Amino acid sequence: MPVGTAGSVKGIRFEELQAPDLDARIILGNTYHLWLRPGIEVIKACGGLHNFIGWDRAMLTDSGGFQVWSLTEIRKVTEEGTEFRSHIDGALKFLSPEISMEVQSVLGAEIAMAFDECPPGQIEHDAARQSMELTLRWANRSKEALDQLQAGDNQRGSAGMDAGEPQAGMPALRQALFGIIQGGAHLDLRRESLERTVEIGFDGYAIGGLSVGEEKPVMLDIIEDIAPLMPSDKARYLMGVGTPEDLIESVARGVDMFDCVLPTRNGRNGQAFTSRGKVNIKNARFATDTRPLDEQCSCAVCRRHSRAFIRHLYLAGEMLASILLTHHNLAFFLDTMRRVRQAIRSGQFAKFRREFTEQLSSGLE
Amino acid sequence: MPVGTAGSVKGIRFEELQAPDLDARIILGNTYHLWLRPGIEVIKACGGLHNFIGWDRAMLTDSGGFQVWSLTEIRKVTEEGTEFRSHIDGALKFLSPEISMEVQSVLGAEIAMAFDECPPGQIEHDAARQSMELTLRWANRSKEALDQLQAGDNQRGSAGMDAGEPQAGMPALRQALFGIIQGGAHLDLRRESLERTVEIGFDGYAIGGLSVGEEKPVMLDIIEDIAPLMPSDKARYLMGVGTPEDLIESVARGVDMFDCVLPTRNGRNGQAFTSRGKVNIKNARFATDTRPLDEQCSCAVCRRHSRAFIRHLYLAGEMLASILLTHHNLAFFLDTMRRVRQAIRSGQFAKFRREFTEQLSSGLE
Repeated sequence: MPVGTAGSVKGIRFEELQAPDLDARIILGNTYHLWLRPGIEVIKACGGLHNFIGWDRAMLTDSGGFQVWSLTEIRKVTEEGTEFRSHIDGALKFLSPEISMEVQSVLGAEIAMAFDECPPGQIEHDAARQSMELTLRWANRSKEALDQLQAGDNQRGSAGMDAGEPQAGMPALRQALFGIIQGGAHLDLRRESLERTVEIGFDGYAIGGLSVGEEKPVMLDIIEDIAPLMPSDKARYLMGVGTPEDLIESVARGVDMFDCVLPTRNGRNGQAFTSRGKVNIKNARFATDTRPLDEQCSCAVCRRHSRAFIRHLYLAGEMLASILLTHHNLAFFLDTMRRVRQAIRSGQFAKFRREFTEQLSSGLE
Repeated sequence: MPVGTAGSVKGIRFEELQAPDLDARIILGNTYHLWLRPGIEVIKACGGLHNFIGWDRAMLTDSGGFQVWSLTEIRKVTEEGTEFRSHIDGALKFLSPEISMEVQSVLGAEIAMAFDECPPGQIEHDAARQSMELTLRWANRSKEALDQLQAGDNQRGSAGMDAGEPQAGMPALRQALFGIIQGGAHLDLRRESLERTVEIGFDGYAIGGLSVGEEKPVMLDIIEDIAPLMPSDKARYLMGVGTPEDLIESVARGVDMFDCVLPTRNGRNGQAFTSRGKVNIKNARFATDTRPLDEQCSCAVCRRHSRAFIRHLYLAGEMLASILLTHHNLAFFLDTMRRVRQAIRSGQFAKFRREFTEQLSSGLE
C-alpha cells in the first residue's frame, strides 16, 4: 500500500496511482494526521475520505496508535487512552479506541485498524507484557466501538461512505477491522498476543511494532515465528515495512500485505529503487547517462526520461525530480508485489526469491 | 507557452502537458538557466534539449538577455556582450550574441530568440536609444551567428536535434530565429526598433522589455501602437506576459504568442485562475466547499478534486497542492487561448472579449 498520510500519496496524482504501470488497488490514510488536519468535521461535510480526496478504490486507515507514539510528545497513557500534544500546533489532544473508531468510521476506509499501544523496539519483557495487555483491552474496545458505530450507520443507511441512497440489492456497507499483534521482541508475548487477538476475532491481523529500531534479524525472526501461526484465511499485514528485500523475505515467511513510505520518501530524497538495488541519482556518474533509471522497468518514467535528466532536475531543485522518482519507486514496489503474486500462483516463488535477491545486490551498471 | 525554465515546466509532467485538457503545443526553455546548469556539454551529450528532457513537441528558447538582466549582478555591458555573475554560484560568466546562438543551436528548439539588451521599464529616452541601437547590432550578429551554425550543421547533417540519420525526403532542420523589439516606453524608439529589426529580417518578431515595472496602461499603449505595425505574415510574440486579461487585451491589439510563469508560479503559491477571476485557495470559505476550482472548467483536476481538498493539501504543505493548482491554471490559460482562436475564426472575438472580461471580474461564487 502506498502511504497517503494526510490524504495524498506524496508527490503523485491519483490518476497515476490508477494507471496501468502502478495500478495501486489500495492506499493507506492516517487517522492521526487527518483527525488533526483538516479535522473530522471537514471530511464528514465532504462525504468521507474517498469523496474528500477523490479516490474510489480501496483504502486502509491506520488507527493513530503508531503516530501518537512516533510523532508526538506523549503526555500520559492511561487505561482510557493516550493524552499527547499535536505535532502541528502543540495542542493537547486525547485519543482512545472509541475516538479512533469514531474517526475511522467517518473516514470510511474499507479497512480500519484497532487502536493499539506501540511500544519501543527494545522494550523489556515486563513492560512489553503490560503494553500488550493494554493493547488487547483496547482491541476489544475498538471492536465494540466500531460494531456499535456500524450498527448505527446501518440503521441510518450508509452514512459516511456516500451521501447518496443505498443501492437496491447492495449489502449494507461494513468496514473491515484488523487487530494488531504487539509484544515487542519477545516471542512468547507475540504468540500470546496473536492467540488472544484472534480470540477477539477480526477481519484480518497485523503485526505491529516492528521496524521501530530493533535489529533486522530480530524482525525477520519474529515474522518467521508469528506469521505462520496467523489465520491463513485472513489477510496478514506487516505494518510499516519495508525495503524490497524486506517484502520478499516477509512474503517468504507468510505475510500478505505491507505499507511503507520508503518508495515515496526516498524518492523525494533522490533515491531510486531498481531491480539492481538502490541508486542515488545525485551521483556524478549519471550526468550524461541517457539510460532509464532501471533498464528492466517499463513504468511511464523509465519509458520517457533518462538518469541524466532526473539528476539534473534533482540538482536544480525542480519538483519534477521528486515526482518522477516517486512514480518510478512506487511502480517498482507494486510491480515487485505483482511478480511475487504471479510467482506464488505458478509455484515458482522460491526461484523468484533467489533470482530477485541476487539481482538486487548486483548493482546498477 | 508554459515556461520550462530549467528543462521542466515546474510542477507538471510532460504527459500532462500533452494530455487533451492542456494540449500544450509549444513550451519555453531558458538559454541562461540551461547553459549554467546542467551546461551545454551535458545537453549535447544527451542529443539536444528535446531528447534530454523527453519532449517531442515544439520549443522556443529565450536568448538569455532578459535573465542576465533580471537574475544576475551585471558586471559590464560592452559592445561585445554582457559580463555577469551566475545566480547559482557567483561565477563570472560572459554571454554574447554568438555564445547565445551557439547554446541555442545545441539546445535545438524550433524557435530561437535573438540576444538582446533588456533595459529597465523606466529608462530615459537617450539611454533607451543607446540600448536599442546595441540590441539592433546584437540582432544582426545573432542572425549571422545562427546562419553560420546552421550552415555548418547542415553540412554535417542534422546535428543537435537528433543523433539519428536524417530521414530521406525531409528538409534539413532549420531553427527559426525571432528578433526582439526594444525601446523602453518610448513609442518613437519602439517604431524605429521594429522597422530596423524587420529590415534585418527574422522568422518572427517579439516585443521585449514590457511587463518589467512600467504601468499597465503604458504596456497596452505600446502594444496598441506597435503590434499592428508588425509583419502580419510572421508570428507576433509578446514576451513575459501575462494575466488572462493581459492576454485578451494584447490579442485584441494584434499579438499572437505569449509566455508567462504566472499559471505555474502562482499555482505553487496557492492561487487559482478561474473564469470568474483569481482565487486564493487558502481562504477559509473553501474549507468544506466540494465544488471544483472552476465550475466551468473541464480539466482533469476540476473533474476530480474539490476546493476543500486542494485547500487542505495546501495548508498541510502537500506537494500535490502545487501540482493540482499548476495543472488547473495551465489548463485555464491554454483553454482561454483556444477559445480566443476559435472566437477569431468565427468572427466573434469582440463578443468573446466582452463576455470573458465581464465574467473574469464577477468573482467566484
